[in-house]
Amino acid sequence: MSSPKIVMLGAGNVGYHLSQALEEVGCSIVQVYSRTIERAKHLAETINTDYCTNLSAIYTEADLYFLAVPDDQILPVAQQLKGYIHTNALIVHCSGATPGAVFADLYSNYGVFYPLQSFSIEKSVHFQQIPICIYANKQEAQQLLEGIARKISRQVHLIDDKQRAILHVAAVFVNNFSNYLFHIGQDILEQEAISFELLKPLIQMTVDKIQNNDPKAMQTGPASRGDQATIQQHLDYLEKRPEYQKIYQLLTQGILNNHTSTS
Amino acid sequence: MSSPKIVMLGAGNVGYHLSQALEEVGCSIVQVYSRTIERAKHLAETINTDYCTNLSAIYTEADLYFLAVPDDQILPVAQQLKGYIHTNALIVHCSGATPGAVFADLYSNYGVFYPLQSFSIEKSVHFQQIPICIYANKQEAQQLLEGIARKISRQVHLIDDKQRAILHVAAVFVNNFSNYLFHIGQDILEQEAISFELLKPLIQMTVDKIQNNDPKAMQTGPASRGDQATIQQHLDYLEKRPEYQKIYQLLTQGILNNHTSTS
Repeated sequence: MSSPKIVMLGAGNVGYHLSQALEEVGCSIVQVYSRTIERAKHLAETINTDYCTNLSAIYTEADLYFLAVPDDQILPVAQQLKGYIHTNALIVHCSGATPGAVFADLYSNYGVFYPLQSFSIEKSVHFQQIPICIYANKQEAQQLLEGIARKISRQVHLIDDKQRAILHVAAVFVNNFSNYLFHIGQDILEQEAISFELLKPLIQMTVDKIQNNDPKAMQTGPASRGDQATIQQHLDYLEKRPEYQKIYQLLTQGILNNHTSTS
Repeated sequence: MSSPKIVMLGAGNVGYHLSQALEEVGCSIVQVYSRTIERAKHLAETINTDYCTNLSAIYTEADLYFLAVPDDQILPVAQQLKGYIHTNALIVHCSGATPGAVFADLYSNYGVFYPLQSFSIEKSVHFQQIPICIYANKQEAQQLLEGIARKISRQVHLIDDKQRAILHVAAVFVNNFSNYLFHIGQDILEQEAISFELLKPLIQMTVDKIQNNDPKAMQTGPASRGDQATIQQHLDYLEKRPEYQKIYQLLTQGILNNHTSTS
């Protein structure tokens, strides 16, 4: 199959960026679907294709259907879609949190095409740097997905449902939770009218350091050197922010355990 | 005072990089001191100056003494140094965690010169991007420090002891604690033989997003959208790692509170 016909369901962050990346490498997106007409139209115009806002109008003869919809919409959309499309179509979702097996009772060819990145509409992305985790229930389907993935990214990984679930847990720690720590840092400074800008170079360095080193080896700060006096000062300061004090205590304890049990 | 004579005490991460930055803009470092002869010698050769390994050999007539030593060495070194140098010298430390007032009973001119960055010997730094937080107990001393700081950095801030203590708490959250979360992410993946490389683009994006946006507005993930099903799946998976499960619970609760109380 040289140029499979693709339908993109969902025109949110993932659907929008993925469609553009696919279109740029010459994949044939024959239609996009979104319940929200503005989104459907905007994406269709961006990649110069057709759109629909109702599944009854879906293009029935595509080879590959991407479900780039919210996690809780994957199963309902897949169920409705079944009534319209041909039975040999390959159907995939783009979610890190949902098993591929969600399709098992509905379709004979299914899989997952999960770009491991946090997308937002306004921020352009370079797909070549984004790891794409693929999975399919059949060999032929897997080859199709792998071929498409390798066109848009240099990092393609075969990742099964169990591995992807673990990746998603780890992603929550490194992405969602670190972002929350950045928010806490900003919040603490704002209470005292100090600009968050002062911390940005430090944040960038924290990330630069782990590009070529294990985070554990790069750990610095009062906890990693067992500096109880500074830890106590910080806990005292955080008395008036008990929710942050708890977080400080727990993460400090984790670092202390880590750096005393093995050093 | 056009070119103050400077002595750098300490040849660790901060002393090493700060000395180089000062030397590059033409500041006159007349001597470096470290108890460790290899370090003292290496830094002195790097910036082409003299060194000593004993405070009794310190250059007594400098205008400015930098104490780039570990936090718990600042007071002892300052006390010993007092016996050797002239009484009008300006003495500063480079610590985020120590008040400038630590010098109050010893010296008449003192201050702080705190580059807000996490340094390591092997990683070169661009001082122009690093915020430098200065403080001095007298106007003239403050002007001297400010002049030097502006030579090496575009970001110079007058920060008093209280503000610097708060900055240091916030820095622990955004730097030390995020690095620990990166370690947890790596640890979770390694248990399942998945490469940490898969998460690095996501980590970089997390930081890119807050360059021009508030972290709170950039918060994503199961907690920010109140996705209890995914949260529960993740907690179940973490049953075998109770220390990580606790951290997951606490940070998730923080994000939930944050995004339900104000949205």
